[in-house]
Amino acid sequence: MTLASLQTPCLLLSKEKLDRNLARMKARMDSFAVPLRPHIKTAKSVDVYRPALEGAVGLTVSTLAEAEYAFANGTRDILYAVGMVPAKLHRALALQARGADLTLTVDSLDAARGVAARAEESAAGVVIEIDSDGHRAGVAPKSELALAIARVLGPSFRGLMTHAGGSYECRSVEAIREIAERERRAVVDTAAMLAEAGIRPAIVSVGSTPTATFGERFDGVTEIRVGVYMFQDLVMVNLGCCAIDDIAIAVLASVIGRQEERNWLIVDAGWMALSRDRGTAAFADDYGYGLVCDTAGRPTDMIVQSCNQEHGIVARRNGAPIDFGKFPIGTMLRILPNHACATAAQHGGYVVVDPEGEILGRWPRLNGW
Amino acid sequence: MTLASLQTPCLLLSKEKLDRNLARMKARMDSFAVPLRPHIKTAKSVDVYRPALEGAVGLTVSTLAEAEYAFANGTRDILYAVGMVPAKLHRALALQARGADLTLTVDSLDAARGVAARAEESAAGVVIEIDSDGHRAGVAPKSELALAIARVLGPSFRGLMTHAGGSYECRSVEAIREIAERERRAVVDTAAMLAEAGIRPAIVSVGSTPTATFGERFDGVTEIRVGVYMFQDLVMVNLGCCAIDDIAIAVLASVIGRQEERNWLIVDAGWMALSRDRGTAAFADDYGYGLVCDTAGRPTDMIVQSCNQEHGIVARRNGAPIDFGKFPIGTMLRILPNHACATAAQHGGYVVVDPEGEILGRWPRLNGW
Repeated sequence: MTLASLQTPCLLLSKEKLDRNLARMKARMDSFAVPLRPHIKTAKSVDVYRPALEGAVGLTVSTLAEAEYAFANGTRDILYAVGMVPAKLHRALALQARGADLTLTVDSLDAARGVAARAEESAAGVVIEIDSDGHRAGVAPKSELALAIARVLGPSFRGLMTHAGGSYECRSVEAIREIAERERRAVVDTAAMLAEAGIRPAIVSVGSTPTATFGERFDGVTEIRVGVYMFQDLVMVNLGCCAIDDIAIAVLASVIGRQEERNWLIVDAGWMALSRDRGTAAFADDYGYGLVCDTAGRPTDMIVQSCNQEHGIVARRNGAPIDFGKFPIGTMLRILPNHACATAAQHGGYVVVDPEGEILGRWPRLNGW
Repeated sequence: MTLASLQTPCLLLSKEKLDRNLARMKARMDSFAVPLRPHIKTAKSVDVYRPALEGAVGLTVSTLAEAEYAFANGTRDILYAVGMVPAKLHRALALQARGADLTLTVDSLDAARGVAARAEESAAGVVIEIDSDGHRAGVAPKSELALAIARVLGPSFRGLMTHAGGSYECRSVEAIREIAERERRAVVDTAAMLAEAGIRPAIVSVGSTPTATFGERFDGVTEIRVGVYMFQDLVMVNLGCCAIDDIAIAVLASVIGRQEERNWLIVDAGWMALSRDRGTAAFADDYGYGLVCDTAGRPTDMIVQSCNQEHGIVARRNGAPIDFGKFPIGTMLRILPNHACATAAQHGGYVVVDPEGEILGRWPRLNGW
């Protein structure tokens, strides 16, 4: 079966590129002797992340639905890396009661007290989120608050985690390396402070694909959380984390119209198939809603310039005339995503292809909470 | 059952507001004696659109999956309003063979020939898309190309359709009225031109929620296509099409963190739950990723300022200090969407609520193609 048998739009996954991306990151982290805790929020498919489990300490998840999925698919050690609220505890404890080894995340005394109040029901551990770059959640590194939360958690305390979301705003490898070191120091220094108070974190967790790709030191860190690296995307290309040829997913679309006077092709992949993510808008190299490749996956100089729900408007980046004769109605194109997590989330599964475009299978993915 | 029993994030639908929105649009179009052909691309749920079928000529869909769904749920007359490609014809013809009365869309001689070549297999009709505002697909109004396509279609020709997507860029009711008239004229004038050539369109179809809300003339039009009106959203508020109180869907989220130094609440609705749609960014009244309401649905002066996948960062619009005492961990908030189509698409269904927040039921929705 070839691409011609598919209904567009759909999400293609190159198994060859996936395997290469997984192997490259594993080799890098092996060289630092730090294990991965792959984040499944990007792939949300055991078929995708299964090879990444080799040598990993467990998995990271962004929802309890992912935790339930990961456990149902054979992984016990799961870190739920989003702040816990009391109303979700029953689900976490139920999973723990069934045999999962779950680690929850808190960044406040309130949340810590909520979990600690039910510690007797469960052996679920808790990590404190440390804020390494002022981007989102977490308590300040080496703060009294971190120590106070660890004390409230008592025997539930398991360690520290941070995520250098700020690495996405870097515009040089040097800057990413600085952020990576700041990310490491945020948790390693806090761990040292807690150790002085007699509290020893078992987990000292960092991670983002850019910092994992370029970080130069990981000493004191017990695990690395990465997700996007499995697929890569145009934001990762712009950050220097990978080449365009490494991007493992693409939306397969068909030409449904040609606006010759406006120098546009219209394709049947709009924001519903591509997502509304405009992650490359913040970079000099702005790919619109995605970089257009030919049927075989070779990049063109066209991007999806704008989107409606089920229509994508394709234009050449340099404004030169499109050779419309090459794009009859029904021509299939592959569109590389700005942001793999967002684009994949618009689809119920992956059509797995080999380098020749032969279809190897279909892998479902989890969506929802 | 109340909201407290729900796992966040999830998508709430106010049945009262939905019913009001449906009734208001129907009353307006009844006053012009023009029937609706509701577009199900926003709701993608028969439970939502069922009341809108009363008095309607049929449904509009944006994917063949929606067409199959609509037919399976009892609607025969379905307009597929996205350009047809040869590789999808077998699905359309299969639906037609099962008893659907399907209308397809083309805007080129190529696509018309593709459909016409298989006309003997099926009585599916075809409309020609007319471009009323230079935004997307379609052939020029009153163009020779429209006539040529109609001739190629022969007995399959069924009429004309256009969509004034440009109405979303209007910044006054006057401007929307002008676009509405341009939308009407695009198809009505083209229909007149075809009539002179002896070709009579049975369908003369226009529609967008803004033009349907403010248009002053619909003579010559046989049907109005609207979808967003069922739910409304913040873009529609900014366009003057509805009030904030009319927005029928909201993402229910929980406070999972409080960054007091930065004056932020962190909620568990990130772009995965809200979508990446920043439709209000183009307006003076920019709601970020959504307007934050309290648990009961009353608007606050807070918006979701930025998003990660499962984290939303909530801030006050005026920068004044948040009264953090009012927002303990676990506090539920409702977030109104920029763009109902995009936000609803991130969810597998609706939690239907009454004005007191009692849960009336759960309605699944279709996603995918």
